[in-house]
Amino acid sequence: MTGPRVGDAFGEMLRTGLALASPSAMVEIVERDDGLIRAATAERYFAEPAAWLPFERKALDFAAGRVLDIGCGAGRYALALQARGLPVTALDVSPGAVDVSRERGVTHAVLGTVSDHGAAGERYDTFLLMGENLGLLESAGQAHRFLAELTAMASPGARIIAHGADAQQSDDPAHVRYQRRNRELGRMPGQMTIRVRHRDLASPWFDYLLCSPGELAALVAATAWELTDVFDVDPVNYLAVLTH
Amino acid sequence: MTGPRVGDAFGEMLRTGLALASPSAMVEIVERDDGLIRAATAERYFAEPAAWLPFERKALDFAAGRVLDIGCGAGRYALALQARGLPVTALDVSPGAVDVSRERGVTHAVLGTVSDHGAAGERYDTFLLMGENLGLLESAGQAHRFLAELTAMASPGARIIAHGADAQQSDDPAHVRYQRRNRELGRMPGQMTIRVRHRDLASPWFDYLLCSPGELAALVAATAWELTDVFDVDPVNYLAVLTH
Repeated sequence: MTGPRVGDAFGEMLRTGLALASPSAMVEIVERDDGLIRAATAERYFAEPAAWLPFERKALDFAAGRVLDIGCGAGRYALALQARGLPVTALDVSPGAVDVSRERGVTHAVLGTVSDHGAAGERYDTFLLMGENLGLLESAGQAHRFLAELTAMASPGARIIAHGADAQQSDDPAHVRYQRRNRELGRMPGQMTIRVRHRDLASPWFDYLLCSPGELAALVAATAWELTDVFDVDPVNYLAVLTH
Repeated sequence: MTGPRVGDAFGEMLRTGLALASPSAMVEIVERDDGLIRAATAERYFAEPAAWLPFERKALDFAAGRVLDIGCGAGRYALALQARGLPVTALDVSPGAVDVSRERGVTHAVLGTVSDHGAAGERYDTFLLMGENLGLLESAGQAHRFLAELTAMASPGARIIAHGADAQQSDDPAHVRYQRRNRELGRMPGQMTIRVRHRDLASPWFDYLLCSPGELAALVAATAWELTDVFDVDPVNYLAVLTH
């Protein structure tokens, strides 16, 4: 038992998907640190706006001015905003995601974290955290640092447009158990420690925060951001707009 | 990091697939002990003969008399043989596979290994090892025990009908590396140590043998079986018929 190599599993998955005639044949595998594993088609990363859920199209209507697409994946949101004529910077920590975004036509795709990118001194009017990327808040502690980094890059009146998911809406025993353990460890219940696996690669473990709109409002209370709109998509998923 | 629970991952995957409107949405995840992971639709377990590859339909033309379908999965071959009027016993070590096979209409599905089942004293004219189940030979050492167990259950002139896959046809670096390690350990190059994962479950690790027709001929040389026919499906897959 040697275990997977640590590397750009997510990016290699996207590269493989891009090379396929039908990206729906590509499967994304995500493993949680309690051993739970989930595999689902990676088709959504390559989906055109016509195939999106209505709330995803609605999300882009809130975008204005200079946009930073955080965790851009294969660039689907960045491409749609470019098509609308908005200046977009697509950011991802995955070299494969950045390459695939460029190959698919994203004109400004950048490798790095929000923290790395903040050093460049750019200002933005809109920060996108789509594709459940509100999860990039990671944890209660990290959320404050992350939001402060966005503040430092925010133009006056800037917005964050985020897709969130409330883990506590599930009655699945594996999830209930995991959330109970999180509470015992003093974490927010929806803090997930996960990694992506692809062939013999695994990404490093990372935290991903699934929180309710109420938890999100509490998290941003002490920051420069205000939760100004929440649109429920279904009992789990929601679209959040935060204003600076 | 607690890791998955050991259990009937394969059977739970089949149960979930059976409950879905579209089994193609079900994904089977197989992990190798070097960390390689593979996810692919589990649709084939539920496929009707019309959707099979031609060699799979051809395989059933070699079946005659009393049939033991070894590693029956969701019972697709057993159901097709029942429809032809043949008496079939479907055998699987997975309780979920046995339940799903029964629910799908297999009239005689049995839980257990070949070794368990041999104790029942039944005799068969045909042993099916379809769905790549020639892999159940496991290893050079286990193959001889397995084939002896079939011999003990074989009627005169009995046949084994097996779907094999030759791992050495791949030039994928991860596979080449794995096969090299196997040779260093004195194993046959295509001996894979794998497990199935589904949600928070993992099957026990088990060995699965991918061998070439030439290796198979060598393996059976000292047994009561003779490799009488090999039909190449593609450079990797083949259909083998062994006669007692």
